[in-house]
Amino acid sequence: MPELRQDKATREWIVMATERAKRPHDFRVKRSRADITLSGEPCAFCPGNETLTPPEVAAYRRGGQPNGPGWWIRVVPNKYPALVPEGSLERKAEEGFFRKMDGVGRHEVVIESPRHDLCIPLMDDWQVEEILWAYRERFLALQKDPRFWLVIMFKNYGLGAGTSVQHPHSQIIATSVLPLNIRNKLYEAARYHDEHGRCVYCDMLNEELQIGKRIVEETDAFVVYHPFASRAPFETWIVPKAHEACFALITPDESKRFAHTLKAAWAKLHRALNDPDLNYVIHTARSAHEGRDYYHWHLQIIPRLTTPAGFELGSGIFINTALPEETAPFLGGARP
Amino acid sequence: MPELRQDKATREWIVMATERAKRPHDFRVKRSRADITLSGEPCAFCPGNETLTPPEVAAYRRGGQPNGPGWWIRVVPNKYPALVPEGSLERKAEEGFFRKMDGVGRHEVVIESPRHDLCIPLMDDWQVEEILWAYRERFLALQKDPRFWLVIMFKNYGLGAGTSVQHPHSQIIATSVLPLNIRNKLYEAARYHDEHGRCVYCDMLNEELQIGKRIVEETDAFVVYHPFASRAPFETWIVPKAHEACFALITPDESKRFAHTLKAAWAKLHRALNDPDLNYVIHTARSAHEGRDYYHWHLQIIPRLTTPAGFELGSGIFINTALPEETAPFLGGARP
Repeated sequence: MPELRQDKATREWIVMATERAKRPHDFRVKRSRADITLSGEPCAFCPGNETLTPPEVAAYRRGGQPNGPGWWIRVVPNKYPALVPEGSLERKAEEGFFRKMDGVGRHEVVIESPRHDLCIPLMDDWQVEEILWAYRERFLALQKDPRFWLVIMFKNYGLGAGTSVQHPHSQIIATSVLPLNIRNKLYEAARYHDEHGRCVYCDMLNEELQIGKRIVEETDAFVVYHPFASRAPFETWIVPKAHEACFALITPDESKRFAHTLKAAWAKLHRALNDPDLNYVIHTARSAHEGRDYYHWHLQIIPRLTTPAGFELGSGIFINTALPEETAPFLGGARP
Repeated sequence: MPELRQDKATREWIVMATERAKRPHDFRVKRSRADITLSGEPCAFCPGNETLTPPEVAAYRRGGQPNGPGWWIRVVPNKYPALVPEGSLERKAEEGFFRKMDGVGRHEVVIESPRHDLCIPLMDDWQVEEILWAYRERFLALQKDPRFWLVIMFKNYGLGAGTSVQHPHSQIIATSVLPLNIRNKLYEAARYHDEHGRCVYCDMLNEELQIGKRIVEETDAFVVYHPFASRAPFETWIVPKAHEACFALITPDESKRFAHTLKAAWAKLHRALNDPDLNYVIHTARSAHEGRDYYHWHLQIIPRLTTPAGFELGSGIFINTALPEETAPFLGGARP
């Protein structure tokens, strides 16, 4: 019997299609990473090619000149930005009827390593820490701009996850509108807090810890788990145990632990599923004040193992063909 | 300068990323249809193999026995259904905290032709009419069941659109929950009607007709256009000129015209983009009464030319890399 499960945090329903469910090992990727075409073009993110990107907005380097080699992390504006810092926030009418506005925002790329051929599961821990610290630094810089409603830090890894660039990188986009589903997420979390006096993410985390079967890993500061109402096979959440709405309030010590946890969580997926394409996104309040009592920052990893199709596009309901209580132990079993 | 455009019907914002925009002809698909593996297994949808599917719930045939050959349209329950007709609507608690319910609904497959190697742009007009008539028949049957909140008719065409089955088919799913984004669509349409006393879809259609530059085709009963706030390159809407909330009220004559329009609209995409993978979905009220004044049924075609990535997953905002006022004339130019 298939099952409908409700996401406590958004009140969205997800279909757990057990009739068409696969076993966890069936999701192993068959093809190799070589599917990303080597075009022969120089990589704009490799050291020595710094002039191929717009000038950097941040970099971690010892010695050397800005926009030259010597860095281990480099943040640059996206050369083909989805949103740009210029323009007006004024709502304009197109032909008197349709509503539009300038695409105001920021679109940055975090170049995560000088090495072209790494990904987070294969990096040294300190390098992953530096990536997260760069996220924090840019987040703090961007959220100072009062025009921005949302700062979203995310990664596209692999062709199936929307990128053809192999050099390890992630992206940060700041937007001047607050999208409906973020608004809904904040609203539902506030509603839950209003009703129960507690944070829904804390409650979910504690419940998952008590149940245990969907936990992939627990450390003293973070929990890695496959949520009850997962939207996709092997959807993985990393949630800090300490209640905190805003990612940027992370301390250097927590950041170190977060880096270790992120690397380990991705490494489990990497090994168990044969290096799957994936996206990850950090969900966070914008400041220390927003949603302080009811929101809770977290990172979501979505391996791209199935293709959302007409039903998802039309209804917004996701069909998940794997049960999180089966995938989580499968990853646990893949522990080294 | 990139631009944010608001969907009048849902108030969602879409990013028109002109800085990364491609020319319409850049979206032409490079690979061929042969990417769907021929496994050597017999096709369950071909005549003679009727026993490989669950027993049919509807079929159009002249002579012959049910579940035998002789049909030109056959509707069967999905062998691996996402939702099933048995079960209870009761909300249950999982481990006392999480909410779930039985996956109550229906999941049917419309086998669109006895021929294995056709798609709608290559079918005879009468065959397309029969497909649409089968949608209507099954919709009417399913919406009689008071447990169902949503009946959605859709097609997945090609691997990139979520199907590996080549035999022409579409799907109908009835759900026992009303998803958030459908609720929002209905709510925003009602809100617009409340404010203006008119249907937002009628208003958008009239505005697009007056502007003209995003129109792909206009007939006496239907308009094909690329909407102002398209979420994806070459997103195509087919909207009936007559205000009608519910698809099932279509007359045989309108159905004939709709079939002709759907075939012609897809044929333009097929020619201009080299047979792209695509999904289509029929959006409709559930009955003659629901949303009678403010909703307006329509069909949306989404060619799968780009991959929604981390930003879309995290924010719900779509980034579109093609302007509808450029893609619509490009298709018009592809007219035979």
